[in-house]
Amino acid sequence: MIEEKNDEVQYDEAFLRMLLDEENIESFREHFLVLHPYDQAQFYEEVGPDIRQIIYRYLSPQEMAIIFETTEIEDDEYKTYLDEMDPSYGAAMFGFMYTDNAVDILNELDTEQRENYLEMMDEETVDEINELLGYEEYTAGAIMTTEYVSVVESATVREAMRVLRQEAQTAETIYYIFVVDQAHRLLGVMSLRELIVAEGDLYIRDIMSERVVSVKITDDQENVANLIKDYDLLAIPVVNENRELQGIITVDDIIDVIEEEAEDDYSKLAGIADMDDNDAGPLRAAGKRLPWLIILLFLGMLTSGLMGIFEATLDKVALLATFIPLISGTSGNSGTQALAVAVRGIATGDIGGKSKFRLIVRELSTGLIMGIVSGAIVVGIIFFWKGTLMIGLLVGAAICCSIIVATLAGSFIPILMHKLGVDPAVASGPFITTLNDVTSIIIYLGLATTFISRIL
Amino acid sequence: MIEEKNDEVQYDEAFLRMLLDEENIESFREHFLVLHPYDQAQFYEEVGPDIRQIIYRYLSPQEMAIIFETTEIEDDEYKTYLDEMDPSYGAAMFGFMYTDNAVDILNELDTEQRENYLEMMDEETVDEINELLGYEEYTAGAIMTTEYVSVVESATVREAMRVLRQEAQTAETIYYIFVVDQAHRLLGVMSLRELIVAEGDLYIRDIMSERVVSVKITDDQENVANLIKDYDLLAIPVVNENRELQGIITVDDIIDVIEEEAEDDYSKLAGIADMDDNDAGPLRAAGKRLPWLIILLFLGMLTSGLMGIFEATLDKVALLATFIPLISGTSGNSGTQALAVAVRGIATGDIGGKSKFRLIVRELSTGLIMGIVSGAIVVGIIFFWKGTLMIGLLVGAAICCSIIVATLAGSFIPILMHKLGVDPAVASGPFITTLNDVTSIIIYLGLATTFISRIL
Repeated sequence: MIEEKNDEVQYDEAFLRMLLDEENIESFREHFLVLHPYDQAQFYEEVGPDIRQIIYRYLSPQEMAIIFETTEIEDDEYKTYLDEMDPSYGAAMFGFMYTDNAVDILNELDTEQRENYLEMMDEETVDEINELLGYEEYTAGAIMTTEYVSVVESATVREAMRVLRQEAQTAETIYYIFVVDQAHRLLGVMSLRELIVAEGDLYIRDIMSERVVSVKITDDQENVANLIKDYDLLAIPVVNENRELQGIITVDDIIDVIEEEAEDDYSKLAGIADMDDNDAGPLRAAGKRLPWLIILLFLGMLTSGLMGIFEATLDKVALLATFIPLISGTSGNSGTQALAVAVRGIATGDIGGKSKFRLIVRELSTGLIMGIVSGAIVVGIIFFWKGTLMIGLLVGAAICCSIIVATLAGSFIPILMHKLGVDPAVASGPFITTLNDVTSIIIYLGLATTFISRIL
Repeated sequence: MIEEKNDEVQYDEAFLRMLLDEENIESFREHFLVLHPYDQAQFYEEVGPDIRQIIYRYLSPQEMAIIFETTEIEDDEYKTYLDEMDPSYGAAMFGFMYTDNAVDILNELDTEQRENYLEMMDEETVDEINELLGYEEYTAGAIMTTEYVSVVESATVREAMRVLRQEAQTAETIYYIFVVDQAHRLLGVMSLRELIVAEGDLYIRDIMSERVVSVKITDDQENVANLIKDYDLLAIPVVNENRELQGIITVDDIIDVIEEEAEDDYSKLAGIADMDDNDAGPLRAAGKRLPWLIILLFLGMLTSGLMGIFEATLDKVALLATFIPLISGTSGNSGTQALAVAVRGIATGDIGGKSKFRLIVRELSTGLIMGIVSGAIVVGIIFFWKGTLMIGLLVGAAICCSIIVATLAGSFIPILMHKLGVDPAVASGPFITTLNDVTSIIIYLGLATTFISRIL
């Protein structure tokens, strides 16, 4: 049975529910287990705790492991799902998962619950899991898996194919075979594509590619993502300080990393703690947005306080106040543009050592051009609209200076933060905008106060 | 020779340049062709037109094809590079590329130049290219490749392996084998992993998976990306209306799509036409940012004009003006937050039909909570700071209303645009911010004008 693929569901939910209702275990297993794990996981998440209890009875821990590692459960909900299962069933399920996935989930539990599960697993699995649990979050070590295929350099193509067939069931990918020496140090790589066209008697060391791109266990996951993307790899090997092969990272995990990192930069540009809240209730959504909003509220108060210094000037020419949103808005916009370019440039690795300085010089010139063009437009509009050249010149000059300062700040601050080891995306859009509000208003009202005699 | 992989270059540029200088063709080819195509491409882009002339002489069009399709040349620069080559060399090079890559590049040329190349190629290649050229940008058809491996259902495992070995040199991936009937309609799929562990005498139709996830040729590339991501696929087949297999899309191309789409949403949130301008000069950078900045400048003028209506009120209490940046800033921030959640929700497909209405209700409640909390904080601060409850209440009420309106607008506008078939990300951050500036100032000064007698 071939199905049309569109955005709709790939399985008959009502039918599967009916089979569970009828306690028709045979028929349920027959229709459920042929589904793609993604669809099995969708069904599993959809049905609610009561029906999941039946599923746990009907499926083995091994069958459940595939579903559980495919689900898109929120990090803080794993505990809820696991509490529905018998602990020994849960422990057995962890044993059947790819180590990296098991570790991801175990990492979300509290220490006691995690220890309980580990106590019920066999020693070898526990060792593997404990090793991965030790690596810092967002590093190659934390996202790698230990289920890969390796052969020693002295093997023949025929022997390598035999290893491959044995490992085909458990390895996360068999499309790259990593070649090691007796001490398990990484020497090279072969793709399955190369292997299947090679003569069976050849030695692996003679036909492998020695130019293998690898990462260190402590490398940042963003680095790993950039390499996999640039070199179009399906997997990348992870080595320790002695070049001993420790694990691999596959492209499907890297897609998640790329999405995660892009989402993260995006949320921060928008001033939200994190983004996964389409299904969350309003209280939770507000909770994620309020912290930034309130911090910015206090920064905004600072702006109001600063403006208070210029109250005398504002008192004399009320018209001046009407241009404040225009000036602070424009300055905020140009600052956000510069910020976005700098943050993405750093994230994709395009901005390296000496190019940072070049970027700042470039941004200064860009700000200058944009400032002069925008300033001139504003002078023209105000002159023809309000018939006053002085106020036009004042607002135009303020906009020109504000754009230059905002553009420089927008590129300099993230670069500085990156240099200090802070995630540059933390200098989020709203933060830069609020900062630029303050500077632009000081520039504007400072200029106005200085030249007030000419305006009146 | 094994190299440590870090962010540094993977090849010895000076050495390669020296070999070219010495016209040592043998030695250059020996050291250059063992490099990973990505590194070859980096060198090729780095060296400048003069040295590239030598490279064209030393490398065959086939060797050049791999480099050319791996480069990260900007879309509008392909013409410059191609003009360096002899046209017949260029045409031969296109012939050796994967069709999807050749089409991507040919699409960037003007019609005349494209036709010139096509005239010099063999008929079969031209047919394949013309077919792909016909598909609309950003659809599955436009990004698919026609170099895939397919077998008929009646083949045996042994026969399939033979086909695979033959195609291993040219197919873009051999890790999925697509199963078709005599009319080339898609019936199922097998992974190479399954194939190599299967008995040689078995028929493919008996062991293939019939649940093959496929896309239509007209599907949006974002859809394709979501499927590959959800189902952890290495490639997805593309079919026409009759379910005839037309091509495949591989995961490495999808990574580029995911990045492109995320980058696109990000740029628009920041109000930049597009992002790839880290290397561009200031004139070009300014050119990409000025259009939005100037549009927003005019919108900002509108705000100034609107404020002019309230000049009498501002004239009476200059203190009022000092809170304008606070109110418009807060309203802009909360609007951007809501916008970001809605835009990403639509992009990732999380926001479907009926959940759109739910989202708006959720955002209304979220805005209400955030408005009340922020408003109360503001009343408190202003009361203790300025000692005036009336102005505190006025500013607090204005902030509360502004946040509610901004949050609603931030979610409603992108959803409306999506419904109208417009890319919701076009309702960019600065646009929503400027819009919310206007509404928040009307709310604030409207309230102030109404209650002016109590404030004085």
